[in-house]
Amino acid sequence: MDKDSLIELICRNVDRLTDFDSDNYRYIPLHQKPSPSVKAVAQIMEVLKKILFPGFFGPLDEALPASAKVYAEGYLLKVFELLLEQIDNSLCFESEYDNTREQASALAVEFINKLADIKALLSTDAQAIFEGDPAASSLSEVIFCYPGFKAILHQRVAHELYRMCVPILPRMITEMAHTETGIDIHPGAEIGKFFSIDHGTGIVIGQTTIIGDHVRLYQGVTLGAKRLYLNENGIPMNIPRHPIIKDNVTIYSNTSVLGRITIGENSVIGGNIWITNSVEPNSHIRQPKAVNE
Amino acid sequence: MDKDSLIELICRNVDRLTDFDSDNYRYIPLHQKPSPSVKAVAQIMEVLKKILFPGFFGPLDEALPASAKVYAEGYLLKVFELLLEQIDNSLCFESEYDNTREQASALAVEFINKLADIKALLSTDAQAIFEGDPAASSLSEVIFCYPGFKAILHQRVAHELYRMCVPILPRMITEMAHTETGIDIHPGAEIGKFFSIDHGTGIVIGQTTIIGDHVRLYQGVTLGAKRLYLNENGIPMNIPRHPIIKDNVTIYSNTSVLGRITIGENSVIGGNIWITNSVEPNSHIRQPKAVNE
Amino acid sequence: MDKDSLIELICRNVDRLTDFDSDNYRYIPLHQKPSPSVKAVAQIMEVLKKILFPGFFGPLDEALPASAKVYAEGYLLKVFELLLEQIDNSLCFESEYDNTREQASALAVEFINKLADIKALLSTDAQAIFEGDPAASSLSEVIFCYPGFKAILHQRVAHELYRMCVPILPRMITEMAHTETGIDIHPGAEIGKFFSIDHGTGIVIGQTTIIGDHVRLYQGVTLGAKRLYLNENGIPMNIPRHPIIKDNVTIYSNTSVLGRITIGENSVIGGNIWITNSVEPNSHIRQPKAVNE
Amino acid sequence: MDKDSLIELICRNVDRLTDFDSDNYRYIPLHQKPSPSVKAVAQIMEVLKKILFPGFFGPLDEALPASAKVYAEGYLLKVFELLLEQIDNSLCFESEYDNTREQASALAVEFINKLADIKALLSTDAQAIFEGDPAASSLSEVIFCYPGFKAILHQRVAHELYRMCVPILPRMITEMAHTETGIDIHPGAEIGKFFSIDHGTGIVIGQTTIIGDHVRLYQGVTLGAKRLYLNENGIPMNIPRHPIIKDNVTIYSNTSVLGRITIGENSVIGGNIWITNSVEPNSHIRQPKAVNE
Amino acid sequence: MDKDSLIELICRNVDRLTDFDSDNYRYIPLHQKPSPSVKAVAQIMEVLKKILFPGFFGPLDEALPASAKVYAEGYLLKVFELLLEQIDNSLCFESEYDNTREQASALAVEFINKLADIKALLSTDAQAIFEGDPAASSLSEVIFCYPGFKAILHQRVAHELYRMCVPILPRMITEMAHTETGIDIHPGAEIGKFFSIDHGTGIVIGQTTIIGDHVRLYQGVTLGAKRLYLNENGIPMNIPRHPIIKDNVTIYSNTSVLGRITIGENSVIGGNIWITNSVEPNSHIRQPKAVNE
Amino acid sequence: MDKDSLIELICRNVDRLTDFDSDNYRYIPLHQKPSPSVKAVAQIMEVLKKILFPGFFGPLDEALPASAKVYAEGYLLKVFELLLEQIDNSLCFESEYDNTREQASALAVEFINKLADIKALLSTDAQAIFEGDPAASSLSEVIFCYPGFKAILHQRVAHELYRMCVPILPRMITEMAHTETGIDIHPGAEIGKFFSIDHGTGIVIGQTTIIGDHVRLYQGVTLGAKRLYLNENGIPMNIPRHPIIKDNVTIYSNTSVLGRITIGENSVIGGNIWITNSVEPNSHIRQPKAVNE
Repeated sequence: MDKDSLIELICRNVDRLTDFDSDNYRYIPLHQKPSPSVKAVAQIMEVLKKILFPGFFGPLDEALPASAKVYAEGYLLKVFELLLEQIDNSLCFESEYDNTREQASALAVEFINKLADIKALLSTDAQAIFEGDPAASSLSEVIFCYPGFKAILHQRVAHELYRMCVPILPRMITEMAHTETGIDIHPGAEIGKFFSIDHGTGIVIGQTTIIGDHVRLYQGVTLGAKRLYLNENGIPMNIPRHPIIKDNVTIYSNTSVLGRITIGENSVIGGNIWITNSVEPNSHIRQPKAVNE
Repeated sequence: MDKDSLIELICRNVDRLTDFDSDNYRYIPLHQKPSPSVKAVAQIMEVLKKILFPGFFGPLDEALPASAKVYAEGYLLKVFELLLEQIDNSLCFESEYDNTREQASALAVEFINKLADIKALLSTDAQAIFEGDPAASSLSEVIFCYPGFKAILHQRVAHELYRMCVPILPRMITEMAHTETGIDIHPGAEIGKFFSIDHGTGIVIGQTTIIGDHVRLYQGVTLGAKRLYLNENGIPMNIPRHPIIKDNVTIYSNTSVLGRITIGENSVIGGNIWITNSVEPNSHIRQPKAVNE
Repeated sequence: MDKDSLIELICRNVDRLTDFDSDNYRYIPLHQKPSPSVKAVAQIMEVLKKILFPGFFGPLDEALPASAKVYAEGYLLKVFELLLEQIDNSLCFESEYDNTREQASALAVEFINKLADIKALLSTDAQAIFEGDPAASSLSEVIFCYPGFKAILHQRVAHELYRMCVPILPRMITEMAHTETGIDIHPGAEIGKFFSIDHGTGIVIGQTTIIGDHVRLYQGVTLGAKRLYLNENGIPMNIPRHPIIKDNVTIYSNTSVLGRITIGENSVIGGNIWITNSVEPNSHIRQPKAVNE
Repeated sequence: MDKDSLIELICRNVDRLTDFDSDNYRYIPLHQKPSPSVKAVAQIMEVLKKILFPGFFGPLDEALPASAKVYAEGYLLKVFELLLEQIDNSLCFESEYDNTREQASALAVEFINKLADIKALLSTDAQAIFEGDPAASSLSEVIFCYPGFKAILHQRVAHELYRMCVPILPRMITEMAHTETGIDIHPGAEIGKFFSIDHGTGIVIGQTTIIGDHVRLYQGVTLGAKRLYLNENGIPMNIPRHPIIKDNVTIYSNTSVLGRITIGENSVIGGNIWITNSVEPNSHIRQPKAVNE
Repeated sequence: MDKDSLIELICRNVDRLTDFDSDNYRYIPLHQKPSPSVKAVAQIMEVLKKILFPGFFGPLDEALPASAKVYAEGYLLKVFELLLEQIDNSLCFESEYDNTREQASALAVEFINKLADIKALLSTDAQAIFEGDPAASSLSEVIFCYPGFKAILHQRVAHELYRMCVPILPRMITEMAHTETGIDIHPGAEIGKFFSIDHGTGIVIGQTTIIGDHVRLYQGVTLGAKRLYLNENGIPMNIPRHPIIKDNVTIYSNTSVLGRITIGENSVIGGNIWITNSVEPNSHIRQPKAVNE
Repeated sequence: MDKDSLIELICRNVDRLTDFDSDNYRYIPLHQKPSPSVKAVAQIMEVLKKILFPGFFGPLDEALPASAKVYAEGYLLKVFELLLEQIDNSLCFESEYDNTREQASALAVEFINKLADIKALLSTDAQAIFEGDPAASSLSEVIFCYPGFKAILHQRVAHELYRMCVPILPRMITEMAHTETGIDIHPGAEIGKFFSIDHGTGIVIGQTTIIGDHVRLYQGVTLGAKRLYLNENGIPMNIPRHPIIKDNVTIYSNTSVLGRITIGENSVIGGNIWITNSVEPNSHIRQPKAVNE
């Protein structure tokens, strides 16, 4: 077939594909606003890691007394600039806002003021992961390359933005960690100190989950909702529907804990279980014995 | 050790490593043909996303009436060009084909003619995901950053190429989504309208699976084969061996449904279960109670 | 707010963030040493793939008799150069070593001398994966794009470096595969011939696991520790604590096998089970029947 | 010297270097406005070349009847987008303008409306260069890689922006050609049809030069000012001060023609001469004979 | 103005710009064939420099006995692959050739067989430049960063392709040097041993120039044609029309030597002169005295 | 021809090309030392421009009081790091030095201490160029895009390194400007305040040239040596051999001033002249009248 006929054949599809009013595509909105940029969000996380863990992810000078402040200042200004742009775009993503620049600037500053607290929390997480894994040889190794640490870093950052009601952006930040680690923690989840995840692939932690201090989760654990709660119009209601995990709880691999139930403090939940009722403090739960056919 | 001796020491390994006839490497074919390019496949998916969801992943002008057609034409021509090359390489990947250019060109056009249908199906998927997740704030958010949506997008594209018997390429497309989302749907699976996945990490859907409309799966669900069926030569037969899931079925996290069994319509399957027998319509299946030691 | 006030507001955080002696950050070491480079490790794996599977991931000439040796030599020298640098940085990562260059050079050569053995083992893995998946159309497809094959490739490479006591680097190599495939095999695990993984997302294999020949694992399987063994100071001991899997064992999806127990040869373990006791040879284990409410 | 002292030593220079009020730096303005981007200007020229010469610098499809319009539309929209930004930044470069966006948009459209005329002029230049160089094998070769053609292309584009009083940007466009070809034509010069330059390195054509049709210049020719004309404050006045070259004039290599003089039509000016007086039509000027010592 | 009207306004230019039959654009061919790639040509030159001057432009190992051959083989294969493609595209650039692949392959091999001779000639050029410049501190400096050496390197490479009648490509290679150095030597020029250029900007050497051994040129020297020789149809004839420069001639800056004249051996030509008649051997030519007004 | 024979044919050239002892290549040293990196030198100049002209070539914040010091510190540390490496490599380029790191570090600091002086000199150059060009609309335009300013910037930086006896690097820095502007000023030239170049292509200024204040040069001017001065071994001596140009001298286009002569203050030298004898102060020199045939 000659090239001209080929092109014509291909372009015949244009009309159908751009028939934006077609009922066929009714659930695909025509997106006529700026979107936040995945690439810029990645850059933000890169710079934040340099601020929070000097020397690990950038030049050595970050961790030297004489130059540490210079680097920190430069990184903070960079983060501000990047965040400003992405918060601005996020504010417009789902709404008809205009002139969101001022608001974005204030939110970016507010976030930056939270960084020292985030760093303090992450310090406890690093220790909790290190303590719980005999295979870890140092805190440095945990901070440098453990996926569980990466996931909680992203979530703690996203959680602050979520609390400031920034749309879409927090989700993008946790999704980035989800992609790299297979760990899916919603930005809305409230998580205490000394939180640790081991291995982690397949972990899901829902939006309204509340987690105490010194909690430890293994791969494949779900802290989810049990069912949808619909309002009178049949639309699912965004109400507290995920579990409350008290202090010092450990949950082993592939177990699902579902609904607004409470796992009492100091409990140990075995693997591969399906839990939909609250559990008393100090419980030890395990699967019924398997069958040898 | 001086540099020259070092190099000699290293290069001593060359002979052993290039002894292609060695019995040691008997299962590693010597690949003397072009391979499709992972990078080009990524580009194809980027451009397809711009065609299918104007304004989300490219410049705003894609979604403006005055320029939408211009962009769509440009993107379609680009997709054709990229696909032609990759289909051509794929046709050669496992065989001794020659002169596959004409065939590749016809297949690329055939695929492009399917795009409007793919878009219509994805429209229903976006809605199904949105309806099922109280944490989702808009259809736009689902399309822009939900991993479940990304996985089904890749599979629906790959499935059309699979039906046209293009080798290797469909698999590369679903593998790309697998890498990013942890969701592994075989290009061969037949999937109905309004399909939804929540969280999704760890989901596996096998090659001969058949899924009805309005089906919903949670993270860690396996729709797999129960065992291998060997022919008289001991080679596994590629026969229907994965489940049939009827309309309106929901399957919760980490459950495995295995073998050519049928889950009847409107059934709800709880989490962490191992199912190897068919299930009646309207069933509610759950794990036996856990034990509190 | 004018730009100058804004900058001042942002930079106010510098002092708190660089107060390295603060008790708040007590578990975050100040990292004043070079780190190995994630990007360089990715390059190393790219070149190794070209050495091990000529023609698949580089130019066709790699697989032609007349030029194969030329390419192999070039790649080996490149790998040496990259490895030397990364091993050197790794040796310093957690210690106060000086002058590790000589040692790094010797270790890099030692690793390269193992490549032919690694290739021979991977040859058996490719065959095992191919044999077990009716959906695979050729050995080439397995080598080119199966995530299970990618995971075992990274582990076998990392395992050799682990045996040579190179710090951090082996972990980075398996983490890279973990990120892309969701399969998390510790570099310390000892794995026999003809090892196969199907789908694989969510698989976890612990540091002291020992796996025989012809073992097959499905997605979500955990070969883990049952609990921590603390020494008199309350610090977890790095002792054998993961399972021993004998020859010809198959373990289906989402099952957890925990503790220093033994799964006897020729056993088949069903999916979604939690196993903490040894299993006799030739056993067939499955979950108790689910309940239809 | 230890690292900390070193850093201190280096940073001691900061105060002196940022003493912006110092009399030492009195002629270096503190630039607190956006600048146009050299990289974006390069992109603009790349796209313009695709619009003006379909098939030479982009994909073949640009030159096929079925797709040429699609490409042209896409390129025009791209040029508009890029130009809008750069004109906007240019309007601010030297002034205190605010809200220049609207003006920039109007100017960008105005420029685009000139493109067809620019193309028509360049068509004559290609022919003039081709006719005058026996070494040229085709018009295609001239358009594809002749530096003289590149220089006049940049000047004709810059000249239209210059006429619209866009600051700085026109100069950047001719400077780009100057860098690549050594040919320095001011954006202000008025140049007739069928203009040709051979080799060209070292050619300088001043701001108020007027050149007729069918004029031909060789390398090293200067069409410059003879001297500065100062106003009462001693500031050079931007008045007509460069030559007028009439139709059908040829000027050979390294000759300088200086001042507001006129070279009459059909004249041939030899090389290496210094001319500061007008020349009659039909003249043949040459250097005095050289001396053999 | 709203965005839609704007786009319409812009796109109105499409018809005029794509009216390929318009008489206005009569000298701009519609280019419907592949073009050689500027970027690939740059790559070719990069690799050639590594082959010809081991250790200067690539890794040190290129210059070590144990690995030099390995590198050279790899580079030669790379050059072949790149050249094959570019020669193929060049053969099609101006003609209706089909199936030029075989021919391109043969030409690429033929060129590679010339490389050792090219290297030998360049060895003499390096020495000539070094000897003539008191500011040069070593032969290494000349090879590493002297523009005159770069220019003659490109010309000698291009000249071999020119002699093999490869179209367009030789010109692209010398144009690349012209852009970087301001030295414009036609690929057709025949140049003897020990050729040296000092500074070089503005030098022009025409297509049919013949240059002996030990010739030295300074910046701004033109070896050009005196006039066009038209055939009966008024088309310039490509006949010998540039000078013959005999052995041991030096020509100083900015002098033009024009026409098929001969500069006799051992002559020294001063700067800023215009020469159109042959010069006897052993002459010393200079400009007439300047005037002090 | 089949691929294998082809490769063999190509590789036959390896022996000849790597016969490093061959007399044919006698003037091409085998370079077994690190070379400074062209790319790193470009980076150094980019950062220096940000330090010297805040706001022009980087983010606006560089020029704001609140952040200027932060940026300056960051840039100085970056320059130090880059320079250290390149000076180190330069010290080894031609010699057998070992342990040059300490010396390189001291030299880098010494250079950085000169930056404020360089900035002060460049401030006068910007003003001189601006005053002399009626086409310049502001000092900002001169600093942002005038080639003459770029050339003197590179030379003043290179000159300081030259004075510190750093080999090869100064030359690379001026060569970079030469490539972009066609202006070739040797790093050794001593140049006074308020130096200006207009257009500039083709200008050559030799190693031992001495230039006073307020000197102005036009395109194509050569300040060169008249001849080589050989020592008893026939090797050219690196002695003062270029002109001395006194204060307030202007030299017009394409004129060559050669030898260790002096052009007296306040002189004006016309274009296209060849001067080999000293010129009195206050002279006005011009070419003899041209001839009208």
